[in-house]
Amino acid sequence: MKILVLNAGSSSIKYQVFGMDEQQVLAGGLIDRIGEAGGEMASHHEALEQIIQRLQAAGIAGIDAIGHRVVHGGEHFKQPALIDAAVVDTIRAMIPLAPLHNPANLEGIEVAQRLFPGIPQVAVFDTAFHQTMPPVAFRYALPVELYQQHKVRRYGFHGTSHQYVAQQAAAYLHRDLADLNLITLHLGNGCSAAAIAGGKSIDTSMGMTPLEGLVMGTRCGDIDPALHFYLHRETGLSADDVESLFNKKSGLKGLCGVGDMREVQALADSGDTDAQLAEAMFAYRVKKYVGAYIAVLGRIDAVVFTGGIGEHSARIRAQVCANLQVFGVHPDLDRNTAHTAGILEFQQEAATLKLLVIPTNEELEIARSTARELLRRS
Amino acid sequence: MKILVLNAGSSSIKYQVFGMDEQQVLAGGLIDRIGEAGGEMASHHEALEQIIQRLQAAGIAGIDAIGHRVVHGGEHFKQPALIDAAVVDTIRAMIPLAPLHNPANLEGIEVAQRLFPGIPQVAVFDTAFHQTMPPVAFRYALPVELYQQHKVRRYGFHGTSHQYVAQQAAAYLHRDLADLNLITLHLGNGCSAAAIAGGKSIDTSMGMTPLEGLVMGTRCGDIDPALHFYLHRETGLSADDVESLFNKKSGLKGLCGVGDMREVQALADSGDTDAQLAEAMFAYRVKKYVGAYIAVLGRIDAVVFTGGIGEHSARIRAQVCANLQVFGVHPDLDRNTAHTAGILEFQQEAATLKLLVIPTNEELEIARSTARELLRRS
Repeated sequence: MKILVLNAGSSSIKYQVFGMDEQQVLAGGLIDRIGEAGGEMASHHEALEQIIQRLQAAGIAGIDAIGHRVVHGGEHFKQPALIDAAVVDTIRAMIPLAPLHNPANLEGIEVAQRLFPGIPQVAVFDTAFHQTMPPVAFRYALPVELYQQHKVRRYGFHGTSHQYVAQQAAAYLHRDLADLNLITLHLGNGCSAAAIAGGKSIDTSMGMTPLEGLVMGTRCGDIDPALHFYLHRETGLSADDVESLFNKKSGLKGLCGVGDMREVQALADSGDTDAQLAEAMFAYRVKKYVGAYIAVLGRIDAVVFTGGIGEHSARIRAQVCANLQVFGVHPDLDRNTAHTAGILEFQQEAATLKLLVIPTNEELEIARSTARELLRRS
Repeated sequence: MKILVLNAGSSSIKYQVFGMDEQQVLAGGLIDRIGEAGGEMASHHEALEQIIQRLQAAGIAGIDAIGHRVVHGGEHFKQPALIDAAVVDTIRAMIPLAPLHNPANLEGIEVAQRLFPGIPQVAVFDTAFHQTMPPVAFRYALPVELYQQHKVRRYGFHGTSHQYVAQQAAAYLHRDLADLNLITLHLGNGCSAAAIAGGKSIDTSMGMTPLEGLVMGTRCGDIDPALHFYLHRETGLSADDVESLFNKKSGLKGLCGVGDMREVQALADSGDTDAQLAEAMFAYRVKKYVGAYIAVLGRIDAVVFTGGIGEHSARIRAQVCANLQVFGVHPDLDRNTAHTAGILEFQQEAATLKLLVIPTNEELEIARSTARELLRRS
């Protein structure tokens, strides 16, 4: 069985083809700058035609199914969905919840339906894994009408990644996922933490949108909800200006001028105090979520680091794990810096609480989810 | 030594006179609805004249000093300040940070200066105790200019209360406050948590304003910072509408229609599922801060509950402390419901981590701070 995974953004399409028997990538790539001046492709349609040509050139034929990443499934989609007209309409109805992402995801679906007629397609939602959160975690302390009429609640994102690394952790530890309490930390350009009890997400740091929670590359994460009003009064910034400020000019970049953790650390090492603060704040805020999630989980079996920063920055992992002995967190700082292509385990020998680095693979998880959904339907 | 403590709001003045030798209240009361239709007093000046008459009628003469509660001291005031023209100007300069509170506090100061000429007056700030927070805790992940030019940072509030109960805890435990790590939970109509290391606040849940953090009577506490933009787009609410919604129509009241925890619990007991959720969310969010602050403190000696809810709701205390054995939190549920006028200790016999209920007394702490400041200056 061959599954094509598509992740369509507003000006890009990422694609990978998986051979599901071997769970191997057969081909993959990115077409970006779609529709932009100087870009090679005028439309998503042209880009997908190009992808088909590339697959043919690579000798790949006979795609059995297509899996699409879709950012926002609202409360409707608690698991992957075989795409039909009703599913497309529901994804469209979620656009107000994800005005930047869902339209692009939809365009990818519609183009693929035209170019792969008759091939089953499955939508896999970033939000779906977190639909198991209980109301104490997903509701905000806002008037109940905002939830009932306007869908205002925590949804959480990166669900495909949190789910994937949780499953990988259980397999690696030779344990049943249903018996494990995990904290998974997806630390990349976007960052989120999740509390996972018995394989089910019970809380996560991103909220109604991906802006809430941890410090990110350019997003502010948690702030005082009255800041907007103060900024408006003091600086005259419009709502659009403030939205752009919080999403694109904040986070690590706002604190020290660069949004990539590797650059932040290089600056910090050169003595830049703003970069030192940015790195320290990033780790401090992760640490607070780790404590909060241990409190709601009661006990944990493992902390899992993933995402670009989580997988590659031993120094952020060391800062997050420092001074948490009271929780049973005992990192081995030598093991933490070991290089491995696969899963790294870095707690001290005698510690029962596992500290794991697990490379995420959202595309593979989308392919697996697509295959499972087809099997379920067949 | 007799100290008059004044807490001037926009339409009220609370007052208490303390005899400092005995640390006893000699007189106290409240004048409210100042300047309102049907109120008895037209101005803060009239109200304070009335207070003077009441004190004379009670046989209290010879006020030695006046202590004023002032909400926002910004970064300038790290401790109480003997009031002079420069201090008044600085408090005035903080008005943008606390537009509802500092003007009323200032009016109280100016009226008292006219009616008690020559009597030393001290300003005691709600923010001052938290000025020991390090940048990782007090900065937001926003552009550095917002901090440098617009004073955007976490300040924290309820400082007088957190400081008071921390001192009381040390005295009760016969320990040096400098050797204790504490989490203090001020749970009243407004709610905040503080992480206190060796007597110094190192983090707190309220932020630039008292809107951030825990679920409160009518305030939302932590939410996704992108909600404002969504609400504006979806409902057309203005910034002023949203500010009022988050401050006055949210929290417990938004979730279930009533903002007083006793009413919430009565509704919950009658089977109202909204009230059940409101109570559960309130406790859940406190629990998350307890976990987060244990993570940043590394270890703690005691959790201290204070404020109307913290002192009187054994059931909220039980919910906050439930399932935290991994942290060494072992509540004795019988002790927790014991009645005492003083300090209640309710951990299990064998537990080393203390669980304390300590009645707060912000007025007494303001009187003590006023006396200390005079002594320091003399």
